Amino acid sequence: MTSSPRFQPARAAGRRRYRPADHSSVVFHGGFWQSWTETVRNVTIPTQHKRLEEEGFLEVLDFDKPAGPLVRPIQPSGLSMQHFFDSDFGKWIEAASYTLKAHPNAALETKIDAIVEKLEKGQMADGYLNSWFIRREPGRRWTNLRDLHEMYSMGHLLEGAVAYYEATGKRRFLDVMVRAVDHIIATFGAEPGKLRGYDAHEEIELALVKLYRVTREPRHLKLATYFVDERGRMPSYYDEEARKRGESPDDYVYKTYAYSQAHMPVRDQHQVVGHAVRAMYLFSAMADLSHENDDPTLKEACDRLFDNLVSRQLYVTGGLGPSASNEGFTREFDLPNETAYAETCAAVALGFWSHRMAQVDLDSKFTDRLETVLYNGALSGISRDGEHYFYENVLESHGQHRRWKWHYCPCCPTNIARFITSLGQYFYSTDDHELAVHLYGTNSAELTVGENFVRLIQETQYPWDGDISLRFAVERPSRFQLRLRIPGWCRQAQISVNGVAVDLDQCVTKGYAAISREWRNGDEVRIGFSMPVERIYAHPAVSEDGGRVALRRGPVVYCIEETDLGGEPQRLRLPASEEISARYDAVLLGGATVLEGSALEADISDWQNALYRTAPPSLKERPFTAIPYHLWANREPGAMAIWLQEV
Amino acid sequence: MTSSPRFQPARAAGRRRYRPADHSSVVFHGGFWQSWTETVRNVTIPTQHKRLEEEGFLEVLDFDKPAGPLVRPIQPSGLSMQHFFDSDFGKWIEAASYTLKAHPNAALETKIDAIVEKLEKGQMADGYLNSWFIRREPGRRWTNLRDLHEMYSMGHLLEGAVAYYEATGKRRFLDVMVRAVDHIIATFGAEPGKLRGYDAHEEIELALVKLYRVTREPRHLKLATYFVDERGRMPSYYDEEARKRGESPDDYVYKTYAYSQAHMPVRDQHQVVGHAVRAMYLFSAMADLSHENDDPTLKEACDRLFDNLVSRQLYVTGGLGPSASNEGFTREFDLPNETAYAETCAAVALGFWSHRMAQVDLDSKFTDRLETVLYNGALSGISRDGEHYFYENVLESHGQHRRWKWHYCPCCPTNIARFITSLGQYFYSTDDHELAVHLYGTNSAELTVGENFVRLIQETQYPWDGDISLRFAVERPSRFQLRLRIPGWCRQAQISVNGVAVDLDQCVTKGYAAISREWRNGDEVRIGFSMPVERIYAHPAVSEDGGRVALRRGPVVYCIEETDLGGEPQRLRLPASEEISARYDAVLLGGATVLEGSALEADISDWQNALYRTAPPSLKERPFTAIPYHLWANREPGAMAIWLQEV
Repeated sequence: MTSSPRFQPARAAGRRRYRPADHSSVVFHGGFWQSWTETVRNVTIPTQHKRLEEEGFLEVLDFDKPAGPLVRPIQPSGLSMQHFFDSDFGKWIEAASYTLKAHPNAALETKIDAIVEKLEKGQMADGYLNSWFIRREPGRRWTNLRDLHEMYSMGHLLEGAVAYYEATGKRRFLDVMVRAVDHIIATFGAEPGKLRGYDAHEEIELALVKLYRVTREPRHLKLATYFVDERGRMPSYYDEEARKRGESPDDYVYKTYAYSQAHMPVRDQHQVVGHAVRAMYLFSAMADLSHENDDPTLKEACDRLFDNLVSRQLYVTGGLGPSASNEGFTREFDLPNETAYAETCAAVALGFWSHRMAQVDLDSKFTDRLETVLYNGALSGISRDGEHYFYENVLESHGQHRRWKWHYCPCCPTNIARFITSLGQYFYSTDDHELAVHLYGTNSAELTVGENFVRLIQETQYPWDGDISLRFAVERPSRFQLRLRIPGWCRQAQISVNGVAVDLDQCVTKGYAAISREWRNGDEVRIGFSMPVERIYAHPAVSEDGGRVALRRGPVVYCIEETDLGGEPQRLRLPASEEISARYDAVLLGGATVLEGSALEADISDWQNALYRTAPPSLKERPFTAIPYHLWANREPGAMAIWLQEV
Repeated sequence: MTSSPRFQPARAAGRRRYRPADHSSVVFHGGFWQSWTETVRNVTIPTQHKRLEEEGFLEVLDFDKPAGPLVRPIQPSGLSMQHFFDSDFGKWIEAASYTLKAHPNAALETKIDAIVEKLEKGQMADGYLNSWFIRREPGRRWTNLRDLHEMYSMGHLLEGAVAYYEATGKRRFLDVMVRAVDHIIATFGAEPGKLRGYDAHEEIELALVKLYRVTREPRHLKLATYFVDERGRMPSYYDEEARKRGESPDDYVYKTYAYSQAHMPVRDQHQVVGHAVRAMYLFSAMADLSHENDDPTLKEACDRLFDNLVSRQLYVTGGLGPSASNEGFTREFDLPNETAYAETCAAVALGFWSHRMAQVDLDSKFTDRLETVLYNGALSGISRDGEHYFYENVLESHGQHRRWKWHYCPCCPTNIARFITSLGQYFYSTDDHELAVHLYGTNSAELTVGENFVRLIQETQYPWDGDISLRFAVERPSRFQLRLRIPGWCRQAQISVNGVAVDLDQCVTKGYAAISREWRNGDEVRIGFSMPVERIYAHPAVSEDGGRVALRRGPVVYCIEETDLGGEPQRLRLPASEEISARYDAVLLGGATVLEGSALEADISDWQNALYRTAPPSLKERPFTAIPYHLWANREPGAMAIWLQEV
């Protein structure tokens, strides 16, 4: 395995810059994430390739064959060809690549190489690369950045190329994509003679930063910076290109460029608007560029937008973007449960953004949300068997929602896959003097703090239990600061080093406890996060949750499913005084802690045929079991609810 | 004014058949409906014609000019031409015609005549009449009954023609439409050589019954009967015609013919499904045909479907069809409030159906729903000024809903207009021996019971008050049975005749009190319906209304608007013990009874920037005023709710 260059973070006066752990150096040898990462590696990655084959995706890249009709149903899912399908190869290659270093797999590499070969063969002489426009509509290339996702597709190929290069050291895919990027540089930019465009579906920006961190070529960073700076400049490029196409800009189907966060310059934006995935990808790039360019104005914009998101527009699961009509945001506090769009991709991408923010500003307000999506609104997007998915992650159902094997817009499966196969990077960050622990879960990690090599063994039943052991193996005694995230949900934390309690009142900054000492081989940090069952209430402006309560324990949000209750959970009324207990159920879907209690159920037996009446429903007692939300819809289909009425 | 023939109901052994009052013989000389009927006659009818002009609708009928592009935006509302716009002339002519007998208006007749002239000129030699297909796509006529609404449009023209003929005695429009119907008879039917089709958007069926009641031509009734009997026969005609067009039936955008109630024969249908307006128009025709053909099987089907609707699928306002995606029904008990589609047309059409059912089976379960839509879910579709509309009648808003002047699919304005201009017919029915009073409100009516001419003066502040006086003026003493509806909402009713109490325990059948006597000039019936404020609860399976309560007084459902409350009503918690009082407010939007009380409001002042927290919201007292739902959105825009949380 060739080792690949990793980026070195810049360092500004008074500011820390962290770098994430190399995902491949973190091994989940037990606990919660072991089975998930194994399932994704052993089931998800191969079955996704199978789906790509079955659904005719691989034919998309048969550049030497006739392209077939523009729109044709492909069996068996009935999907039609779409112009952004290249992105799905990119994401699948990326997800697969993340498994290769720790688990070499020649057969998997052969599959990736076959795709790369097709892409290389199809790339145009000038570097342009997009299977749809090369094969089907060559005359339309670069005529409609507003609607056609050309750079979005290239961005995902680029992320895949970087990941494959880093995993294998093979340059072929990376070289193809560098040529494609050079073609974009030749075409777009602020310089005279270039088009001043930028893609309406953000993605290329963060991919270019990833490329820059491998190549250290200033032109790669410059292009990303140009796209972010240019975005939202008025008069809009999208108006101009629409007129060039002979169309009226007023006919834009989404009516406002806020759909693509292109309604004003990014630094002026205060409210998170539009398509949720686009927003998260843009903000991830902005966080990256604030880091790489040492640009506080982007960080400030990100801070404002992050606060807006988490204080007004985020589901308790970490899901985001309530509306199907724009796959995104509507008005503040609009968080309907049963019609929640809350796309898996958006939750995953909030993980990306939160994580990037924490590298620039180590604050648990960011990593708390990374943890929330990880255990809830993103993980709910994949089934326990690893081969069924949700695109929309509703918070309530009457049983009409089913996980599917594949989707007409299959962006989510590969997104959750790449999130999980690269999970290690989200657990730890380091710089020259610090080691930050963001997430908890059994794993062993190999990390570099400055010049020091550190092996860290984390043992815990987390998230089912708040007791965590961190054991250090160091080559020689090493002085550095350990930063431990105290989760926002935790009201009582205890930390000891080699049995000596740490005074948390003295050492917690922005939600991270700092322990600075000379670490020696065998040192052990023990953490106890008190993890009672908690009742969560939503801001009264969230009218869908008025009078309702959600149950959470640690980072895990719970739901009640009809299959456990024997009735619709929507009919329950949870007494405010009810004690709810937690119990580990080793049998349930690979093992999970469930919550148990008793509630009142609105009786339907005395309603005869009435739909309305003047007497309130009578209530009768019913015991209930709540399961982690991320495990819902893995058994018999039925109703589900997170927010329960409280009486 | 020429008097026109009116139909004489058939009479089967043991069954009564009622005929509605002639709408023009009922005059609202005061009370609730006086100002509404005057507003619709003086504002709505003329402004709708103005909209038709402004929006370029009248050009639709310029058969001698080039048709212009298939799809073009028309200023100022930005709407595009649609292939069913003929229906809007039909409905507008119908609504206008209903005003002409009582309020002759030569200028209005001239406007109608101008439209009729255009239609006559454009009609094809074989009788076919549809401006879209004649002018724009002649090759496509009768190729797609599933999607193109040809008979729907003709049906509305036919209803307009019948109404105009009945109002004026002018035959020209009626003759045009009889020729169109003869063309349909020549084209469609079960006879060899004819197409066995039927329109997917029901409407022609009930229009044909109206025509038959004027012409008494058996072929008109036969065609209506054929369409209803043929509906849903398998294999489907829609499959066949799709294949003829070279399309796969599987590509049908709505996936199931249940969308058009064409998934099975109508007599086999048990659940109300699909597009709500289509369903109501079909069922109206089924009720009519059960009447005309003395067909109990259609009545039985209607009974089943009516029960399904009112016990599982009807909003408390009488709105129906919760979903925008199919403009119709989803699953039973799915009655979301803020996303309620509840199209005005559907509520109006439920009024049509309920009213028709009552003519065959005098049961207040039907007329109760007629009253519900009249005072709530249909009337909410028109503004108090008579020239702004709702298409969707939501039961809850965060202020995003606004009434509009016109709509890209302007079916609702003319529908509510024709409902109100013909309102008199819904108040009374007669047969040879009975006079049934379905609705209450000040009016004077001239009715014929058998051979007897009866003038009836109803005086009341209803719906603001439950005291009603009915005074009779008869030429000579007349024996007949008076049937008075005891509203389903009423728990305490008193009726007296000339001061002598009637024993209601002895004389109420199916919600109607029967008083049989020889009625003399000056006889007075006094009615007292106790009208307290009531709390309404929804069946626990309606999860959106769980833990919530609605307020109703008499037939009027109430809502709370932000403009009165000074905050979002969604944040209120109404204590179960709170006494709510009623007060007539003479100033409010022409005068209305409002409800007043005090509730608790979830405080937002102590939430800082949190979206979720572990402490429930604190509650503070806030007085509230609730207004009749039908009056909402006539003042400052803001949030609104019918269903309030109860504590």
